[in-house]
Amino acid sequence: MEIAATIISTMNKTRRNFLRQAAVGAGVMATGLPVFAKVTGVSDDEMQRSSSFETEGQRFNMCNYAAPKIETVRIGVIGLGQRGHEAVERLSFIDGVEIVALCDKYPDRVTSSQKTLEKAKRPKAKEYSGEEGWKALCDSNDIDLVYTPTPWHLHTPIALRAMKQGKHVCVEVPAAQTIDECWELVETSEKTKKHCMMLENCCYDFFEMLTLNMARQGMFGEIIHAEGAYIHDLSKDWLFNKNAYADMWRLKENAKHNGNLYPTHGLGPVAQCMNINRGDKMDHLVSMSTNDFTLNNMAKAYAEKDDFFKPYVDKPYRGNMNTSIIRTNFGKTIMIQHDVSTIRPYSRIHLLSGTKGIARKWPSPEKIAFGHSWIKKEELDDLYKKYSPAIINHIGAIAKDVGGHGGMDFIMDWRTIDCLRNGLPLDQDVYDAASWSCLVPLSERSVAKKSRTQDIPDFTRGAWKTNKPHDMTLNGGATTGVRNIKPDLKM
Amino acid sequence: MEIAATIISTMNKTRRNFLRQAAVGAGVMATGLPVFAKVTGVSDDEMQRSSSFETEGQRFNMCNYAAPKIETVRIGVIGLGQRGHEAVERLSFIDGVEIVALCDKYPDRVTSSQKTLEKAKRPKAKEYSGEEGWKALCDSNDIDLVYTPTPWHLHTPIALRAMKQGKHVCVEVPAAQTIDECWELVETSEKTKKHCMMLENCCYDFFEMLTLNMARQGMFGEIIHAEGAYIHDLSKDWLFNKNAYADMWRLKENAKHNGNLYPTHGLGPVAQCMNINRGDKMDHLVSMSTNDFTLNNMAKAYAEKDDFFKPYVDKPYRGNMNTSIIRTNFGKTIMIQHDVSTIRPYSRIHLLSGTKGIARKWPSPEKIAFGHSWIKKEELDDLYKKYSPAIINHIGAIAKDVGGHGGMDFIMDWRTIDCLRNGLPLDQDVYDAASWSCLVPLSERSVAKKSRTQDIPDFTRGAWKTNKPHDMTLNGGATTGVRNIKPDLKM
Repeated sequence: MEIAATIISTMNKTRRNFLRQAAVGAGVMATGLPVFAKVTGVSDDEMQRSSSFETEGQRFNMCNYAAPKIETVRIGVIGLGQRGHEAVERLSFIDGVEIVALCDKYPDRVTSSQKTLEKAKRPKAKEYSGEEGWKALCDSNDIDLVYTPTPWHLHTPIALRAMKQGKHVCVEVPAAQTIDECWELVETSEKTKKHCMMLENCCYDFFEMLTLNMARQGMFGEIIHAEGAYIHDLSKDWLFNKNAYADMWRLKENAKHNGNLYPTHGLGPVAQCMNINRGDKMDHLVSMSTNDFTLNNMAKAYAEKDDFFKPYVDKPYRGNMNTSIIRTNFGKTIMIQHDVSTIRPYSRIHLLSGTKGIARKWPSPEKIAFGHSWIKKEELDDLYKKYSPAIINHIGAIAKDVGGHGGMDFIMDWRTIDCLRNGLPLDQDVYDAASWSCLVPLSERSVAKKSRTQDIPDFTRGAWKTNKPHDMTLNGGATTGVRNIKPDLKM
Repeated sequence: MEIAATIISTMNKTRRNFLRQAAVGAGVMATGLPVFAKVTGVSDDEMQRSSSFETEGQRFNMCNYAAPKIETVRIGVIGLGQRGHEAVERLSFIDGVEIVALCDKYPDRVTSSQKTLEKAKRPKAKEYSGEEGWKALCDSNDIDLVYTPTPWHLHTPIALRAMKQGKHVCVEVPAAQTIDECWELVETSEKTKKHCMMLENCCYDFFEMLTLNMARQGMFGEIIHAEGAYIHDLSKDWLFNKNAYADMWRLKENAKHNGNLYPTHGLGPVAQCMNINRGDKMDHLVSMSTNDFTLNNMAKAYAEKDDFFKPYVDKPYRGNMNTSIIRTNFGKTIMIQHDVSTIRPYSRIHLLSGTKGIARKWPSPEKIAFGHSWIKKEELDDLYKKYSPAIINHIGAIAKDVGGHGGMDFIMDWRTIDCLRNGLPLDQDVYDAASWSCLVPLSERSVAKKSRTQDIPDFTRGAWKTNKPHDMTLNGGATTGVRNIKPDLKM
């Protein structure tokens, strides 16, 4: 990793200078594709550096930071695989945006997304491609927001370059894969006063939004324990699908890291309900993985029929199921699971257990109880009517029409644009991005050390004690319209 | 604790002599009621002793041990609170048993259970009562089986004395509360060749039995991950109910230990499905608890209205939710939860996730999938018909009629008696009792040490590698009848 090389070569400078340089300097970022060299989470050196960052104190508090209003948000999208292509479609429905730049390593994907803009009667965007295209896009001077759904290893490098070049950034999950990267995001966002929002779309799903608002109203009492997950069998249709992820990057990630590679879909929504980084904080975790009982067997079976898969045989695939438990400073716990390689129905769990009630989304249908029995369907419908937050009432129906994981993607996009246009704080800040993502390396480190307890860095550097939860009222916003919601444009 | 005193006083004897003496000697057992002195799980000394026990090797293998046939099983029941009283009712339905002795600290409970026998047209039993009554019962010479549903702290002392006095023993859950106690049970069962069966009734529930048989048939493939729990809000109706547990012993236990106090209902059934101690073994665990957010508040609220509750205020109540994760020698994981003090629907989870399918019982209704969707109700009904094991087809309908947690209690009782009468191995042996129960002290130790990894002792001392799963076919048994199933005798 080039980051590590930079770090070692500067170890003889003063720590303070080094930290600043590593965090905000012009250092070359790690942009190589994942390889088969297995890593074991965070190094001891990295943990020490993390402590130093914490000790230094916060440079500027980006929590609830309101950036200057941007009347028309000029967007550059980097990464036009399936996820990025869908993003272009969704963003093109929103008023007050211009999609001014499109970038992918592969030019044909850029061409394809141009067609989407054309279909939406949007002006043609500037095109970037090749290995270095994303750098040129970040360096251009006609963009306000970089929106980046790329392979995971590019998330932090792109986010850092975008912010350093004066752009806000919306970065796909997970925002970072190492603790160093988490701190670089934090330091850079604080220094540049640019938003670094992780695109944790699951925070905007309908039941999650309902329960977040109910939690804010105290309807579950004190939330004592929560659960989240990303349990989604990707093995056959995605990981081993030659056409799904460029260069099979996602399968390779599953052979490089053994831990929870994808914690934020489960963690984000419950972290919001528990006011993590805004009143409470994640303190430490333990994590445990099973062995792999499926991926290598699948690799062998595919390789028997197709030589393409031969390099994927006998790789150190991550254990099928990872279970992590987090304890907060106020003595609550969060259980997070990750399994993308066993045959089972999809689940993000989304469980909130409080002193007055409990909610759980999966297994479907979603359920709420204020006693020893789940409430009836009609009572749940009433709760949806009464406690769905302002954003759902404002844009929920349209979002369902647009689609994108049932609507949540569009709610997220619309909300983010509306906040930028009205100079409102974003719902998710860089501390959320860093702390939700840091489960990736920390779970891996715990797993590698026989589930040893790992302290979770305080990326807010103390500000969690006074930070306030984000505003769910849409006050000062909801001025952004939508357009062209037509059946033929639906995803 | 008197056990500890005995241990310390013998530390200057040779380890081997000491271990034998501590385990099988005539030492006075710990029989005091729980007090408010908080303990923190297993001591370092105890863990060292545990290693020594492991190193010594197995004395005799009690797994699948067939004791000599007992045509009529003469039973002494110790502990006649609600659970024990129900046991007397259930056992009186079974042919080939005589309930020859009844024992409780309180004589009026013995009188009450005598009436149950009378109603069932059973001969009057010998009566034992007072603090020492259980010792006299264990020492009598007309009993084959001691069946003991007492407060937790008496389980091991009674089981040990019963075996040493030549009786088989059925002991309620958890069988032991310390690692020393676990080893004493193992050593004593091996030395005396008496069965020490923990009454883990949840192993005999209908869906658990179905999934156990399906697991044995390989229908879930290799089981990679499992989950179990005891989530049951006991706070208002049980823990703070003056009439529920004598001397409020169960509330006191919740102020003495912080961990999973009651792991076996969730663990037992999944451990059987995963062939724990019979092909695989639990290797290590981590455990995390929340703080207490309800029990002390309840104590305060009750104490305001009733001085009786004043001694229960500001005690170190255990955290509401405990989550533990276990890893097996073959790289599978088991997640076990425990919460008896928050308002939420009952759950033991019972989840089995394998390479070919998944089952989960809670939240109700129970579900099975062999792909990305749960199968339909009719398909599940078909599975029940096709794969419910022999015992369900033989006694399930009658058990439902008798009752006792929906029938599972009676299935367990009938099966145990039938095995004893036919000289068959019992389904649960002393290794199951010890290893399922040892989560109590090990989870507490992990919690006290910020979730540090704890090795799980191998109570089989290597025999797990060759031990075979128990026989589910009823071969050589099913000769025991039932009687008097009448509505007026139903519980």
